[in-house]
Amino acid sequence: MIEWFDDLVLGMRFKSPDRQVTREEIKRFASEFDPQPYHLDETAAERTPLKGLAASGWHTAAIAMRLAVEVRPFGPHPLLGLGVDDLRWLAPVRPGDVIHIEGEVVEMTPSKTKPQGVVRVKWTAFNQHGDPIYTFTPIAVVPRCPIGSTAL
Amino acid sequence: MIEWFDDLVLGMRFKSPDRQVTREEIKRFASEFDPQPYHLDETAAERTPLKGLAASGWHTAAIAMRLAVEVRPFGPHPLLGLGVDDLRWLAPVRPGDVIHIEGEVVEMTPSKTKPQGVVRVKWTAFNQHGDPIYTFTPIAVVPRCPIGSTAL
Repeated sequence: MIEWFDDLVLGMRFKSPDRQVTREEIKRFASEFDPQPYHLDETAAERTPLKGLAASGWHTAAIAMRLAVEVRPFGPHPLLGLGVDDLRWLAPVRPGDVIHIEGEVVEMTPSKTKPQGVVRVKWTAFNQHGDPIYTFTPIAVVPRCPIGSTAL
Repeated sequence: MIEWFDDLVLGMRFKSPDRQVTREEIKRFASEFDPQPYHLDETAAERTPLKGLAASGWHTAAIAMRLAVEVRPFGPHPLLGLGVDDLRWLAPVRPGDVIHIEGEVVEMTPSKTKPQGVVRVKWTAFNQHGDPIYTFTPIAVVPRCPIGSTAL
């Protein structure tokens, strides 16, 4: 079971459950956080480069976070991020799309001063057609196994 | 008035209005997108590295997007991002905090093939104490002024 920094290895892979994104959710998120025509109004969205209603990129990012929490890549330890690198939106998320995320451990750096390490997991979100729609690589802090615990 | 890629210059600065973040909002966002103890439960949050209830980093990111939409850095043109670089959470956002964002145009690259350009604005969010709490640099596409329009 994965619990500590020490249990992770480079190349380890994760996959989340599926999650459907509804038209109502897209408009609700957008009206609160990203009130632009692409995300709120079908007719206006047709005349934009997205050519139809699509989720706010920040909505996609929030859904991907929810899916990462469900994956529990660090077992009982929560996801605590210092930041994110390489955040890219690759394709629009449409009403009714079903998305999931897949992740791979791409970097592990143990701290020299604290009982923890920095782990980077590159996550990619896919829709029901298998198209990648979003990718991000959070910089997470994961505790190390307490010294001596394995000897108890 | 700023309207086109051509109206922007390197070093141009923007500032958003203030926005208060409430305890209820923090818990509502977290329960939908980031259900972890830091963001949902005051007592459990005390025992985490954040030492108290704090907004999800993705909630902070969504609020910053809302503030950027209100700034309208590209005038009538919407904010359309390919992605984000250098996204970092610098300090916790607490219930009752009042935040705003400030931005600076740090890069402008005209397209060689399309009537548009890529503009990077480095945004930093500050709380009511003037502490920087979050920073991100979206990669935005902004249309160029149509050829000949100034001669009409």
